[in-house]
Amino acid sequence: MGLGELCNQSTETFVCHPSTSGDTTSMQPALALYLALCLGSVFAIWPLPRSLQQGSTPLLLSHDFAFEISLSHPPGDLLSAVSRSQSYLQNDKLERLVVGRGAADRAPISGAKQISSLKLVLGGNRTMRSITEEILLPLEERDESYILDIPTNGAGATLQANSTLGLFRGLTTFGQLWYYSDGKLYTLEAPLHIEDSPVFSWRGLLLDTSRNFIPVDDIKRTFDAMSWVKLSTFHWHVVDSQSFPLQIPGFEELSQKGAYSADAVYTSGDVQELVSYAAERGIDVVVEVDTPGHTAIISESHPEFVACPQFTPWATFAEEPPAGQLRLLPDAANFTANLFTAVAKMFPSSMISTGGDEVNVPCYEQDLEMQQYWNATGQNLNQTLSMFMQATQQSLIKAGKTPVTKEEMALNDQLTIANNSLILVWKTSADLPRVIERGFRVIFAASDYMYLDCGAGGWLGDDVNATSWCDPFKTWQKTYSADFLANLTDAQKSLVVGGQHQLWTEQTSAANLDPITWPRAASGAELFWSGPGGNVSAALPRLHDVAYRMIQRGIKAIPLQPQWCALRPGLCDLTS
Amino acid sequence: MGLGELCNQSTETFVCHPSTSGDTTSMQPALALYLALCLGSVFAIWPLPRSLQQGSTPLLLSHDFAFEISLSHPPGDLLSAVSRSQSYLQNDKLERLVVGRGAADRAPISGAKQISSLKLVLGGNRTMRSITEEILLPLEERDESYILDIPTNGAGATLQANSTLGLFRGLTTFGQLWYYSDGKLYTLEAPLHIEDSPVFSWRGLLLDTSRNFIPVDDIKRTFDAMSWVKLSTFHWHVVDSQSFPLQIPGFEELSQKGAYSADAVYTSGDVQELVSYAAERGIDVVVEVDTPGHTAIISESHPEFVACPQFTPWATFAEEPPAGQLRLLPDAANFTANLFTAVAKMFPSSMISTGGDEVNVPCYEQDLEMQQYWNATGQNLNQTLSMFMQATQQSLIKAGKTPVTKEEMALNDQLTIANNSLILVWKTSADLPRVIERGFRVIFAASDYMYLDCGAGGWLGDDVNATSWCDPFKTWQKTYSADFLANLTDAQKSLVVGGQHQLWTEQTSAANLDPITWPRAASGAELFWSGPGGNVSAALPRLHDVAYRMIQRGIKAIPLQPQWCALRPGLCDLTS
Repeated sequence: MGLGELCNQSTETFVCHPSTSGDTTSMQPALALYLALCLGSVFAIWPLPRSLQQGSTPLLLSHDFAFEISLSHPPGDLLSAVSRSQSYLQNDKLERLVVGRGAADRAPISGAKQISSLKLVLGGNRTMRSITEEILLPLEERDESYILDIPTNGAGATLQANSTLGLFRGLTTFGQLWYYSDGKLYTLEAPLHIEDSPVFSWRGLLLDTSRNFIPVDDIKRTFDAMSWVKLSTFHWHVVDSQSFPLQIPGFEELSQKGAYSADAVYTSGDVQELVSYAAERGIDVVVEVDTPGHTAIISESHPEFVACPQFTPWATFAEEPPAGQLRLLPDAANFTANLFTAVAKMFPSSMISTGGDEVNVPCYEQDLEMQQYWNATGQNLNQTLSMFMQATQQSLIKAGKTPVTKEEMALNDQLTIANNSLILVWKTSADLPRVIERGFRVIFAASDYMYLDCGAGGWLGDDVNATSWCDPFKTWQKTYSADFLANLTDAQKSLVVGGQHQLWTEQTSAANLDPITWPRAASGAELFWSGPGGNVSAALPRLHDVAYRMIQRGIKAIPLQPQWCALRPGLCDLTS
Repeated sequence: MGLGELCNQSTETFVCHPSTSGDTTSMQPALALYLALCLGSVFAIWPLPRSLQQGSTPLLLSHDFAFEISLSHPPGDLLSAVSRSQSYLQNDKLERLVVGRGAADRAPISGAKQISSLKLVLGGNRTMRSITEEILLPLEERDESYILDIPTNGAGATLQANSTLGLFRGLTTFGQLWYYSDGKLYTLEAPLHIEDSPVFSWRGLLLDTSRNFIPVDDIKRTFDAMSWVKLSTFHWHVVDSQSFPLQIPGFEELSQKGAYSADAVYTSGDVQELVSYAAERGIDVVVEVDTPGHTAIISESHPEFVACPQFTPWATFAEEPPAGQLRLLPDAANFTANLFTAVAKMFPSSMISTGGDEVNVPCYEQDLEMQQYWNATGQNLNQTLSMFMQATQQSLIKAGKTPVTKEEMALNDQLTIANNSLILVWKTSADLPRVIERGFRVIFAASDYMYLDCGAGGWLGDDVNATSWCDPFKTWQKTYSADFLANLTDAQKSLVVGGQHQLWTEQTSAANLDPITWPRAASGAELFWSGPGGNVSAALPRLHDVAYRMIQRGIKAIPLQPQWCALRPGLCDLTS
């Protein structure tokens, strides 16, 4: 079949099943080709729904279009979400990414039928909760599914879900369907019938706010963008060795002495505001207070708990300057456990991370207090580390939280950690099966696929030829191709709760937060919503659409290609 | 001598001669260490002046501080520059980059003497011209030198120069001296005596506005930032194969059919506005209309002049999609020569670039018209290319312009090009001596040191593991270390007119223009003002200062390190 014949099929209704119920079959090659070459970037839903039937009939949104909420006592955050959806429809004004842009569609949409409403219906017999309440449930109790139906027969469109969170995900999809031309909003692909739900619940973005401080407004803007691609988890690496910007009730000295300045602090009020803002947008804030490593700055307020503070040469005692980490002693463990008890009260999520990466051995070996303790008790490093881990994890478990920790803690068989720990695989994708074999649930954030900061060069002052430790740059294509379920049994696959992009901010501030994150982090959003196995050529036109729509909404997303390519799907593939 | 002893010397006056009259001796190690460890980022002048004497006495800028211009009939652009300087003093409010920031200096500046004026004096017997007129002179006729004197005895400060351009450079230096604390502006390093002039006249930044369009306001903001680090040349790669955003009188069809949209066009008025805005800020706009390669988009309006338009596979016919380049035939050469005549009228600079890179041979070999011409005339590719080059260069020379061209045209000994051509070395630094040996003047822009876009990953849609062709990312340190005069004789060194960073915009738009450019492009600014051989450890605290001051002025410059490092000079070196 030639390209002409293929494209002439565009009057038919295609059914797309990119992945079904946990399966990760890839899109049919013929459909991928069809989407890339014939439809171009019209088909702009991101992430790709589980099931999609689309037509090729133009359909207008009427000027008096309205959302109808057929719920008694709808929660306030759902009403706000509807209001934002209305606002995006009015303000996006995104012209379709084809040669000629909006002008190219004036003829096809002239005289098209209109829809005047989208009716939101809550089905099933689930207790009605707010979006906020739904996203704060444990991962396995959430329901994000929805069914969106947009007919062409003049009837209104409907959005059904079992939960307000599902309705919110459906509203997000609805907002991606409409293009602007000459004062009109339209799709060229009605009728549409979408049945959707995510493959993974944890679809995240990690942001480090310690190496450089990120103001509250910039984080809120990031939440907005995350919600547009259905990301569900903000993993907040809030403190580290360089600064301690988190104000914790009862532990105020940590931020007073450890923040870069009085302005560079997240107050309890800021945290509450951020957690609420995120939750209303279907995002769970999982805070990480990295311990026992990455804690040098605590020595500013509590020198008694920190080993090797600012020891030199730093490279012997830490992965990056300054050196210093919490001692693995009863006093320091008790302090840290109490700290987590206080942190647990600030964050309503069911999960909190204690970190656990890059514990430096020479730092402890050269610490007099550690040596004395080991000598006095006959314990070794791993035994004291195990004691520290158990103290901190137990304080979280007592507070009703599921502990999250880094892969080192799961892969060290000399340690005892909680069985229900969620393990973050960050070093390399090769470690994922190793953690799974130990029976833990995992979050996929491996640096070879998911690190947004790789490839930006070495940042040490005098290291002229240095590259970043995780070179090269991880492109959206690289992330998209991560086949992290490969060679796992079904039982093993069920231990993967999802994954996330990670942004470390040694060279990032509010100045480049948007361009380093967007639209790349959307690649992870689809990877974890739709499952691995997607086709990059078919995805690219839709991802251009995501980026251009983000620009319309005030996010400084970068262009992934010359605009010439964005307007001509497929022509800038290597093989075209 | 220990560090303590070294730092105790801070009450003395150090004399710094980083490079004298074309020499490129590097800073003394002891001084570099002193600057990095004792003064920290106080010493914040960028680029480093040719000669600097500094003290360690605190000095305040009085609340009624004023610039005194002791010139009769000062040009308007000098008055505007003074007005901008005043505005920066009022609005920068940059706190010094030390632990505690501004608060750390409250004690030392309490009761310090004040200066109430800076007197601008034009010396020598040079004809008085505006800044605009000075920067539009040929490279060898400019005088950017100045002497800045800031005493501590209560007398006013003075700024002397032979030209308004020199005064402007001195004003820029003056604006870098002052920090903010508690409503006061101060330096800790009076008295100051600076005698300064650049090693190279061409200190540039190349920006591609074809792959993705960059709006006029973003280019103007870039001019402001360029002027703050004394960059002198904006090399405007305005058009390429992907889009033709330049409106040229008499050739309006090129942008009408070749721009991405009617909004993505630089009108004649825009060009005039940009050229003026730049020149008032000491920046010469050297436009580049790349020919005969990189011209596929011309086929939209003039298919008769373009060989292999959008031929596939594109990789056979071009370095990136789409394929297509101007035919090397008399008609096309004549068209292009006339185009350059028209372009020359739009741009007052004494220099214009005809491009000349990446001419694709298979594109011509598979072009019927080229084949017919070669058969009919007995000419070969190089002879027709030589004809094309001469036609285009001659049109510029007739218009009074010096032609700029890429290294390929100088290194191909089968071509005849104008002897006075300025040759841009872009492929690799190893090519610089080769071009010099052919007797041409050169601009250093080699991709292994000067490309801002390297390391951002491959952008072709389906190339999952691709990196950028010029990986890795070029850090500021890498640029700063470029020893491009190595192994040249003095006579050969005199052929180097300077150099520039280059920013190709396949993955850049207004969204990431600032963070990808700043503060890295400042590294080139010092490399070409102060000459190669600088010490990265000593430079870094000053470069942090540049970046933080840019943020205060609204430029989204990235942080080069965690703020912990920026506040503690030297502690984040590899060797510390």
